[in-house]
Amino acid sequence: MRHAVILAGGSGTRLWPASRRARPKQLLPLEPDGSSLLAAAVRRGQAVAGARVVIVTAADQLEATRTNLVHHGLGDVELLGEPMGRNTAAAIGLAAATIARRDPDAALVVLPADQHVVDEAGLIQVLELGLAEAERADVIGTIGITPTRPDTGFGYLEVADAKTTNRVIPVLCFVEKPDRERAQTYLASGRYLWNAGMFFVTARRLLAELDLRLPATAAVVRSIADGGDPGAYAQLASISIDHAVMEKATGVVTIPASVGWDDVGSWAALPALLGVDDGGNTISGQGIVIDGHDNVIVTDDGVLIATVGLSDVVVVKSGDAILVIKREQAQDVRKVVEALSALGLTRYQ
Amino acid sequence: MRHAVILAGGSGTRLWPASRRARPKQLLPLEPDGSSLLAAAVRRGQAVAGARVVIVTAADQLEATRTNLVHHGLGDVELLGEPMGRNTAAAIGLAAATIARRDPDAALVVLPADQHVVDEAGLIQVLELGLAEAERADVIGTIGITPTRPDTGFGYLEVADAKTTNRVIPVLCFVEKPDRERAQTYLASGRYLWNAGMFFVTARRLLAELDLRLPATAAVVRSIADGGDPGAYAQLASISIDHAVMEKATGVVTIPASVGWDDVGSWAALPALLGVDDGGNTISGQGIVIDGHDNVIVTDDGVLIATVGLSDVVVVKSGDAILVIKREQAQDVRKVVEALSALGLTRYQ
Repeated sequence: MRHAVILAGGSGTRLWPASRRARPKQLLPLEPDGSSLLAAAVRRGQAVAGARVVIVTAADQLEATRTNLVHHGLGDVELLGEPMGRNTAAAIGLAAATIARRDPDAALVVLPADQHVVDEAGLIQVLELGLAEAERADVIGTIGITPTRPDTGFGYLEVADAKTTNRVIPVLCFVEKPDRERAQTYLASGRYLWNAGMFFVTARRLLAELDLRLPATAAVVRSIADGGDPGAYAQLASISIDHAVMEKATGVVTIPASVGWDDVGSWAALPALLGVDDGGNTISGQGIVIDGHDNVIVTDDGVLIATVGLSDVVVVKSGDAILVIKREQAQDVRKVVEALSALGLTRYQ
Repeated sequence: MRHAVILAGGSGTRLWPASRRARPKQLLPLEPDGSSLLAAAVRRGQAVAGARVVIVTAADQLEATRTNLVHHGLGDVELLGEPMGRNTAAAIGLAAATIARRDPDAALVVLPADQHVVDEAGLIQVLELGLAEAERADVIGTIGITPTRPDTGFGYLEVADAKTTNRVIPVLCFVEKPDRERAQTYLASGRYLWNAGMFFVTARRLLAELDLRLPATAAVVRSIADGGDPGAYAQLASISIDHAVMEKATGVVTIPASVGWDDVGSWAALPALLGVDDGGNTISGQGIVIDGHDNVIVTDDGVLIATVGLSDVVVVKSGDAILVIKREQAQDVRKVVEALSALGLTRYQ
């Protein structure tokens, strides 16, 4: 049977102050229709796996996640709590072991909970193609997003031809996040895809790969799935599925997809979701921009933000905190979260 | 007898969003000790005039003004309400006529309610010198502040020598707000003073000048002081005392003063009041500046403002509104207030 695994373990510091430790990015209503990214991911999963959707999230985010799902009419979805975050290899392993116990022949799509997709139908088609390929050939594969800009925030997949979408092709090489210049070369070459963190694989193959490459993790996740002590999770290596498995496995494939994908990795990504007005500004809530352009303004209900003489700036008011950041530095919001920690201002984290 | 007239009619749009129509600049706790500028001005007036202090303010600000005075233990001060704002010639005329009715030989100092002075003792000495000169020679005079920067926000007074403070000298010429280049020339010349809007004159001389130059205003303020219809105030010309009287009167004098004066004319003036930290930032409330300098941050209790990658920016959170403005454009906050009006967003004004 086909199953969807939603990875909802992100702490979401990159969208502070809207995202907080207690309200991570995937729970924010960032979809144009007001849905959370998590709800959109769950619906995506349901489209290819029916009711067989499992969300993996941190134990201390279970309650907030459940509340969010209920709010979106998705209260029946199964939640799997990690005792603590141990990166994607352990999270996916835990889900695969849990699912394999009840369905040894399971085929999985793994979907991050905090991504936005414009063309949902197009992505679902690609996911179904991936699941079919996993079932047919027991391959391990990753969705490759056709890049639209020289982004330095993603890893890349090298392939022979990145332009023909919706077919299964071999991955030649996994590439780490590049610098600007290299990212531009990748974009121009037509041989590179964004590694979007969406995978397709059978539970059996995934667990076999973990047995081979992370045997301790494989043993612990199997034990927990069988009802063993969840405390053992704490000892697992914190490593991504890419580093642990994908980069080392043989015969890894990808399906190039051009579906308007975005990981909403920072406030700078918001214009792609919400659009821009005639002045080039993206405004969510009550905002006024005077003598400025290409600003991103997000505010709470009832609170007005006015900017004068500023361009390429992000201003976000959320609850008891306000962020004002140069748009090109939007990734540096983590510096604020670090400073809050260092200053003991944990109430704002 | 000596009297002090405090002009508290400002709408205070220049410190929006802290100042609002219902809470003008002079009522904000901008003094380093947490006092309002109004309270500081009243104490200044009391220092030279004892209990004979009259505050002129808009009728619809009487209640807020009274509350502020009570809060500062100044509840006994006399308030005079203008039916509507008609600029300084009418306001000072109304106060002079009211005071002259009970004390025909009154000498007045006129003090704006929204200015900050570092050296209060120094200013009081200058005001007493001015009052003595008004009583002795029936002159009309204005305090001239020794300029400390080429400010384009003030009118200037030309004198023979601006450097010798604390003596009465003739004003050669009143000069309108200059452009940057001209302001720099003024500063370098040593012959120009800032026109600070603080005057000394007898009530008799002031009313005689109004009889001569604004006879309708003189008649109406006398009539209102005698218990006539305040409604007539609406018909008065809205003109400043500088334009109506000072620039035209003969024998106008000034006393150069170097007393750490500031009119807190915009958020850009705040560092002069509150000081700057090692990073060159001025922060009132909970603020964090990362990768930036020379910012001004003002926030409400409990609300954090964090900036990243920005310098020379003013960020103010007050109640239900947030302003983010380039520091050099701080005067342009009026554009926001105008926009709020045009958009019908009067709740934020």
